[in-house]
Amino acid sequence: MELFIGFDIGGTNLKLGLFDEKLKLLDKDNVANPAGLTAEWLVEHAFQSANTMLTRNGYKLSDLKAAGVGCPGTIDMKNGIIIASPNLPFKQTPLRQMLSTKLGCPCIVENDANAAAWGEYAAGAAKDINDMVFLTLGTGIGGGIISDGMMVRGHSGQAGELGHMIVYPKGRRRCNCGQYGCAEVYASASHTANRANDRLKQGVPQTTLNDVYREKGQVTSKDVFDHAKKGDPFATEIVDGTAEALGLLCINITHFTEPQCVILAGGMIAAGDYLLKKIKEQFKKYVWTMQEQTLDVRFATLGEDAGIYGAGDLAIRQKEQS
Amino acid sequence: MELFIGFDIGGTNLKLGLFDEKLKLLDKDNVANPAGLTAEWLVEHAFQSANTMLTRNGYKLSDLKAAGVGCPGTIDMKNGIIIASPNLPFKQTPLRQMLSTKLGCPCIVENDANAAAWGEYAAGAAKDINDMVFLTLGTGIGGGIISDGMMVRGHSGQAGELGHMIVYPKGRRRCNCGQYGCAEVYASASHTANRANDRLKQGVPQTTLNDVYREKGQVTSKDVFDHAKKGDPFATEIVDGTAEALGLLCINITHFTEPQCVILAGGMIAAGDYLLKKIKEQFKKYVWTMQEQTLDVRFATLGEDAGIYGAGDLAIRQKEQS
Repeated sequence: MELFIGFDIGGTNLKLGLFDEKLKLLDKDNVANPAGLTAEWLVEHAFQSANTMLTRNGYKLSDLKAAGVGCPGTIDMKNGIIIASPNLPFKQTPLRQMLSTKLGCPCIVENDANAAAWGEYAAGAAKDINDMVFLTLGTGIGGGIISDGMMVRGHSGQAGELGHMIVYPKGRRRCNCGQYGCAEVYASASHTANRANDRLKQGVPQTTLNDVYREKGQVTSKDVFDHAKKGDPFATEIVDGTAEALGLLCINITHFTEPQCVILAGGMIAAGDYLLKKIKEQFKKYVWTMQEQTLDVRFATLGEDAGIYGAGDLAIRQKEQS
Repeated sequence: MELFIGFDIGGTNLKLGLFDEKLKLLDKDNVANPAGLTAEWLVEHAFQSANTMLTRNGYKLSDLKAAGVGCPGTIDMKNGIIIASPNLPFKQTPLRQMLSTKLGCPCIVENDANAAAWGEYAAGAAKDINDMVFLTLGTGIGGGIISDGMMVRGHSGQAGELGHMIVYPKGRRRCNCGQYGCAEVYASASHTANRANDRLKQGVPQTTLNDVYREKGQVTSKDVFDHAKKGDPFATEIVDGTAEALGLLCINITHFTEPQCVILAGGMIAAGDYLLKKIKEQFKKYVWTMQEQTLDVRFATLGEDAGIYGAGDLAIRQKEQS
């Protein structure tokens, strides 16, 4: 049996999974990052975590054939360098080489959203599908594009910023990125809550969300979906706004790389089939009519493990690289 | 020397080019399609045109190593079947096999917009560039996407319908496809003229385009650009509308596959640097500000020959297939 490790580096935690050559998950872990994080510290941390995991499964470091890493930020894939990362101490950091030296095996470094997309493609909701687009609906909207079994990375590794596609150019909501009308600023979990809170603050006469707002000082996207499902008109209006932006985003995705399916991940998918149905309604409302167009939109199935699966699979596929 | 032919099948004409193995164009032709076109007729027509071209260059059919074909419509690439084509008598037509049998060499069939994109990638404006998006600004807006040197075809060959990306979801202009707010219905050459004509019909008090409109009954996109360049405020407003839709489209393209450059082709590029400057201005107006984002947008250089170059290059690359 050949062994591979997939790392998923986050701002606060490091996740890792141990895989065999068929991407069977043998063990996994989720460890808090050390304080005063530096790039060297993080590599040491990954090394020790991997060592611990290997040891407790009866293996040693030299059994490792390759490792994959999902990491937030802009990545020079060719050279395995993290050019910049929003929440991590990486700047022009040769992470692939550092980790490869430490672990004594070939490593591959990938953007975290791409790694998660690849995980769903390799072992999750898009298994057996060659063309897919992955969207995470969380604080923002992240994306990953796989076309004919190939990760679309873009000229400088910044493809798949699908949350920043402008769906409402005349929209008044401004995104943190500086643009107006980004899909993210209407349809991410945080911004769904924001849109509700902005209106509740102004005073919406009749909505069951007022009680929650008064009690907690704000509502969450889960509150919005819960109340919409119970038929509250205001909550439904907010959800319809989210679904419209996602439906439009899916139309543009369809006309762009024409994936077989769109996979949704992130906290908001807890809203379940209600959300899927709403998105499909909005898709159908706006999409062209020359031919029957249906949207195959599904929920991710790997949850928090998508990143380690993706990184693990990339390690398996690229074990010959170093 | 090895010989290859690239065909570009259109609704009224068949273009073909004879290439060597380094994609050097040896000869080209543009012949009218025969009347009462059937799929068999078109294959016979292509065969005879190829034969004529080979003969006049001192070669014979058996010297041909492979042929490529750009063809409008939806194509099953795996099986070389034209599923449907808007202006040609193809329906579930096994064009690759028919042409391959007739010419006695392997053939490859590709969507015409993709073939043109591939031509610019292989021998034109995007030579030496691996990530590009191609837009033709004509009656409609066609597109082709190349990512990391790979043609993005989509799940069923319908990727790159970039003219139907919705840029104004609340827009009142309806596209022929049935959608409202498509990029095409604002920014194609025909629709640039349409937007001007609609307003001129209603009566625009002060514009130098009124004379043209009265004389010819309508204005063309060329008229609009010509008058805008001379400073006419109404013509400038129409051009700005075109540039805004293209700028927004380019922003969404940037966030999607992040190409190194966007290549513009089609009749409207005759407007020259004035058009490029306007698009860049609009791109800059709407794009995010977290990092310096500039748009490398260029004009196609192969003109009408892009399709035969693309088909020829695909033939060279895939000569082993049949």
